Amino acid sequence: MNKAVCLLSGGLDSATCLAVARKEGYECFALSFDYGQRHKIELEAAARVAAALGAKRHVITKISLDAFGGSALTADIAVPKQRTLEDMGQGIPVTYVPARNTIFLSFALAWAEVLESSDIFVGVNALDYSGYPDCRPEFIEAYQRMANLATKAGVEGRTNLKIHAPLIQLSKSQIVKLGSELGVPFGLTHSCYDPQPGGRACGQCDACLLRRKGFEEAGIEDR
Amino acid sequence: MNKAVCLLSGGLDSATCLAVARKEGYECFALSFDYGQRHKIELEAAARVAAALGAKRHVITKISLDAFGGSALTADIAVPKQRTLEDMGQGIPVTYVPARNTIFLSFALAWAEVLESSDIFVGVNALDYSGYPDCRPEFIEAYQRMANLATKAGVEGRTNLKIHAPLIQLSKSQIVKLGSELGVPFGLTHSCYDPQPGGRACGQCDACLLRRKGFEEAGIEDR
Repeated sequence: MNKAVCLLSGGLDSATCLAVARKEGYECFALSFDYGQRHKIELEAAARVAAALGAKRHVITKISLDAFGGSALTADIAVPKQRTLEDMGQGIPVTYVPARNTIFLSFALAWAEVLESSDIFVGVNALDYSGYPDCRPEFIEAYQRMANLATKAGVEGRTNLKIHAPLIQLSKSQIVKLGSELGVPFGLTHSCYDPQPGGRACGQCDACLLRRKGFEEAGIEDR
Repeated sequence: MNKAVCLLSGGLDSATCLAVARKEGYECFALSFDYGQRHKIELEAAARVAAALGAKRHVITKISLDAFGGSALTADIAVPKQRTLEDMGQGIPVTYVPARNTIFLSFALAWAEVLESSDIFVGVNALDYSGYPDCRPEFIEAYQRMANLATKAGVEGRTNLKIHAPLIQLSKSQIVKLGSELGVPFGLTHSCYDPQPGGRACGQCDACLLRRKGFEEAGIEDR
């Protein structure tokens, strides 16, 4: 069985991505980050999702992105609420965390190299209106090219490391449908950027609004 | 004054690289990593070097590469001793840390984005016989290309982020000469992979041997 490293945030996209990797027959090593995010509760969701979807191992790595600040998810900047889809389409939001996916993929690359795995799965999505630069196909392609030069395997001419981004061209409702078909336990996932006391979703941040829209359009109930 | 993020390990290469950035007129933000390395003493050297060379700030970020293992610098694998240059030229040594420079550069990229800096300095060197994949010019070029797609600036069409690797084509003795000209306080730096009790260099690992050879060939005394 081929091994894959799967980035897992605890949200519905990365859970669906993990389910895709499992469906494709990979033995999955799930990787999550405690990076000073205000919605740290997502890590509990990640652990539950990893177990439910049969990941071989789940590692939560602590890193300090809050040392640099610059994002509403890691610094003392308010999370925007009740934005329209038009607003979300205007530029990069303050919830963008500088270079986050670049950093996450780099840790995945390190683990893949140790595991002698050539496959990394990441649940990025270019179409969900969030406008993050490091969710675009051209970024993923450039990352894969770089990664194939960064490692022992690359030096030895085995440049077959692949960054799988199976959700990158899907809408949120398509992701919900796909996850539903693959048996993703959506009830275990967490999307909200600004969880309320007791861990309840705020219902008003971009992540909550996009999630609700995705389930509505898919005609599936979000439990 | 333009800002630059400078990766600083505490060794003589990165100290010389920081001195180059200062000489070129940059306001320098030095970045070091506590990554579970057995030679953690290098972080004290990094702090001394950052202060001596007038870095504007010095941040030491803690990350957990030891969670993945796979290297003599982070796992329970012996550091090779008394190797000849021929031995060192044979393949990638066990002191290689998987994806380390990819990870370090990714944090530098995050900080650069927050600082609105377009310049990252890294003291990698392709010629010192250590054979690390992530010290090669083609890796640095691919990283720069990826980084220009990874950030807000990249989305907005400002693809001018530059990864400066001023030592990449220099021999160790050329680095020693350059550092000497720029007033690098070599006595504050630390190179040994396997420091002995009291922090003394072992004198026998690849890093010690290459350092000694560099100073000898440069005709400069290593205090």
